Amino acid sequence: MNVNAIRKVDGGVIAARGYRCGAVGAGIKTKAGALDVSIIFSDRPAAAAALFTTNRVCAAPVLYSRNLLRKRRTVRGIAVNAGNANACTGSQGMKDARRMAGLAERAVGAPAGSFLIASTGIIGRPMPMAKIEAGLRAAAAVLGDSAGHAESVRRAIMTTDTVPKSAAVEFRLGGRRVRIGGICKGAGMIAPNMATMLAFLTTDCAIAPALLRRSLREVVEHTFNSVTVDGDTSTNDTVFLLANGAAENAPLATPGREADLFRNALFTVAADLAQAIARDGEGATRFIEVCVTGARSESDARKAARAIANSPLVKCAVHGGDPNWGRIICAAGYSGAPVIPERMKLRINGVLLFKGGMPTRVPPAQLKACMSPRDILIHLELGQGSAERTVWTCDFSKEYVTINADYHT
Amino acid sequence: MNVNAIRKVDGGVIAARGYRCGAVGAGIKTKAGALDVSIIFSDRPAAAAALFTTNRVCAAPVLYSRNLLRKRRTVRGIAVNAGNANACTGSQGMKDARRMAGLAERAVGAPAGSFLIASTGIIGRPMPMAKIEAGLRAAAAVLGDSAGHAESVRRAIMTTDTVPKSAAVEFRLGGRRVRIGGICKGAGMIAPNMATMLAFLTTDCAIAPALLRRSLREVVEHTFNSVTVDGDTSTNDTVFLLANGAAENAPLATPGREADLFRNALFTVAADLAQAIARDGEGATRFIEVCVTGARSESDARKAARAIANSPLVKCAVHGGDPNWGRIICAAGYSGAPVIPERMKLRINGVLLFKGGMPTRVPPAQLKACMSPRDILIHLELGQGSAERTVWTCDFSKEYVTINADYHT
Repeated sequence: MNVNAIRKVDGGVIAARGYRCGAVGAGIKTKAGALDVSIIFSDRPAAAAALFTTNRVCAAPVLYSRNLLRKRRTVRGIAVNAGNANACTGSQGMKDARRMAGLAERAVGAPAGSFLIASTGIIGRPMPMAKIEAGLRAAAAVLGDSAGHAESVRRAIMTTDTVPKSAAVEFRLGGRRVRIGGICKGAGMIAPNMATMLAFLTTDCAIAPALLRRSLREVVEHTFNSVTVDGDTSTNDTVFLLANGAAENAPLATPGREADLFRNALFTVAADLAQAIARDGEGATRFIEVCVTGARSESDARKAARAIANSPLVKCAVHGGDPNWGRIICAAGYSGAPVIPERMKLRINGVLLFKGGMPTRVPPAQLKACMSPRDILIHLELGQGSAERTVWTCDFSKEYVTINADYHT
Repeated sequence: MNVNAIRKVDGGVIAARGYRCGAVGAGIKTKAGALDVSIIFSDRPAAAAALFTTNRVCAAPVLYSRNLLRKRRTVRGIAVNAGNANACTGSQGMKDARRMAGLAERAVGAPAGSFLIASTGIIGRPMPMAKIEAGLRAAAAVLGDSAGHAESVRRAIMTTDTVPKSAAVEFRLGGRRVRIGGICKGAGMIAPNMATMLAFLTTDCAIAPALLRRSLREVVEHTFNSVTVDGDTSTNDTVFLLANGAAENAPLATPGREADLFRNALFTVAADLAQAIARDGEGATRFIEVCVTGARSESDARKAARAIANSPLVKCAVHGGDPNWGRIICAAGYSGAPVIPERMKLRINGVLLFKGGMPTRVPPAQLKACMSPRDILIHLELGQGSAERTVWTCDFSKEYVTINADYHT
C-alpha cells in the first residue's frame, strides 16, 4: 500500500462524510464580530480518541473531556470556544465546562454525555456563560457542510494565529472512499500567552476504538508532539479524533496493511497541520526542520533534536541567516543524548558543515547560500545507530519578544 | 558560626595570600590591544578542585585540565586565554592545550603538570599558538598582586561581558585571617556564541583536597549551576578553586563548624559572581530570582525553578513589566515536577498573585508596582513539602535577539 494512494483534498474538518459544522461570533474574543464559538457535529455516533496536554495545570475542558472519554467510546461532536481558556478557574470552571457540554448537546439535540469540549484564550477569568450559551445555540442553528462552514470553523478557533490551518486526505479501503480531515490552531498565542494547540480531526472510516486510539497516539508523537515553538506546553493542548464509519468500509480492527494505510493517511493530515503551526509561530520568519539520525535510540534522537530546536541561540542564528554549526553541535552536546563529537556530521540544507569533530572548510558563498531558503533543514547524523527523529520549529525574531513583552495581563 | 563573620573585601582572585596574577594583550581577541592572556599563580603548591561543563562536546582545555586533576592533587596556577575557545579543534586542539600548559609552566618556572588551563572565545578555529606563547611569557613577566593586576586579569577573561566580575571575602579560622576570592566571565557570549562560563576561585585556607572538592561541588550546585541565561550549556564551562594554605590555619579536613564556615564563605563569593553573570546576560535589563519552595524534593524544586527561569514567555513578560502569573504557573506545570494547582501560591516581589488554583484579585496599581523594580523575585510555593531551590536569570529582550542573530559565523 503506497503513500501515493493518499490524495490531498479540500474540506478540512468536514471533508469526511457525515460531519457538519458551524461557527458564530458570540462576543468572547475582544475583537467585535470575531467568530469564537463553534460546533463540529457527526450525524451518527463516532468513535473518539483524544490526547491532552501533559501540563500538570490542566484547564477545566481538558479535565472534563478526558473524564468523559474514560466512560464513553463514542461521541456526537465537539464544542469549542476561543477567547477564554477556562483555565485556572477553580471549581466554577469545572461547573462551566460541564454546562458548556450540556448546552451543546441540547442545542443539537444530542444525548447527554455525547460532546467533547475545548477552550482557548485568556486564563484565570470566569467563562462568560451567557455568551457561551447564546453562541452554542446560534452555532447549532447554522450547522452545514459547505466550504463556507469549514472556513468559518477553522477561523473561529484561531487566537493570534495569522493564518487558518486545515488539511484533508482521501484514500480507498476495500473499494470504499475514506477521508480524514482536520483543523488546528497553534503557536500564535493568546493573553496570557499559553501557546495552546488545538487540533480536531474527523474521519468517515469505520475503525475500532482501540485501533483508532493507537493510531492517534503514534501519529501525534511524530507530528503535534514534534512541534516546538518555545518549549512551553499549554494548560489546554488538545487533539480530538472522531471516526463515524460513514464511509461504510469493512471496519478496521486489527493491525495490518489497511491499518497502516489509515495511519499513514492520518499522519499526512497531522503532519500538514503540525508544520503549519511551526510556520505560524509567533514572529516566525523561517521554518526549521531538525532531523537527527544515527542515534542509538529514538529517545536519544528526540533529546538531541528537541535541544537543537529549543535553543534560543540556534533559533536566533537561523533568524539572522547564520549557518552557526557551533550552536547546533553545542545543543546536541548538552541535550543529554550521549553524542560523540568525532562521529557527528552536520548538514544544513545539504551542505556539510561539521565532521570528525571539526568544522569543514566550506567556501563562504556556499555557506551563505545554504541559509538563504525560507525553509531550513538541519540534519545531524550522530553515527551511533539507526534511530532517528524529526522536530519542527521556527526562528526566533525580535517580533517574538515584542509580541510577548508588550502584552499586559 | 554566623554568616556575619564573613566580611566582603577587595582583591578578587588575588585577595587571598600567596597569589599573584598578570594579563597582557596578545592579539587573540580581534579588538586591538585588548587583554586576552592571563596567568594566576600561587607561590606554593595549592590543592585544586574543579568542575567542568557537562556538555558532551568538550573543549580541549577542559579535557586537558580534567585529566590533569585525575593525576594531581596540587597545582601552581591557571593559564587562561580569551578570543579562541580551542573547541571543536580535533587532535591539534589537544596538542595545543598540552603545549599551552607547558608554556605557562616554563614561563613561571613551575614544574611540568602544575598548570590548569582554560580558554574562551570562538570555536572551530586552530589556536594561534605563536600568540599564546608570546602572551604567556609576557604575562609571566608582569605577575604581581596589586589592585591593578587583579583588575587586568578580570578584564582579560571577558568576552562580550559588559562588566568585569570579581568578589572576595574574609573570615577567621582559629585566629587566622582566611580569604577566598574569585573572578568570572559569563553569559556575555562570543562568536559563535557558547555562553561560556569561566570562574577562578582562590583561597589561602589550608584545607584537605577531599573537603575542598566537596565544598566546591556543594556550592557550585547552588550558585553557578543555578544561573541560566538561555538554557544553553557551553563546551568550555569551567570552575577552578585553588587553596594554597598560606593563611596557615590548622588544616581543615573534616566536616563540622569550621568546614561549614569555609563553605558559607565560598558560597558568598560564588553567589556574588553567579548573580553578576545573570545580571550581565546578553541584552539583560532585569535580574530575576526564581525561588521555588514547599517541594517534595529538591529535584522537584529545581525542575520547577529551572522551567520558569528558562521559559522565553516568562522572560519576555518580565522584560515587558507584566506580572504574568499564567506563564509562571504554566511553566511549573510542564516542568515535570508533580505540582498541584490548588496548593500553589505565587508571589512576585511579595505580591500574592495566585492561590487556590486561581488568580487573586490584586488592584491594578499594586500589580504594576510589583514589577517596577529592576530586580524581580518570583516566589512559587508548591505546598507539598519543605524542599526548595533558587535559580537566577535575566529577562529576554530584543537586544538578545539582535546580539545573537546579527553575528555571523
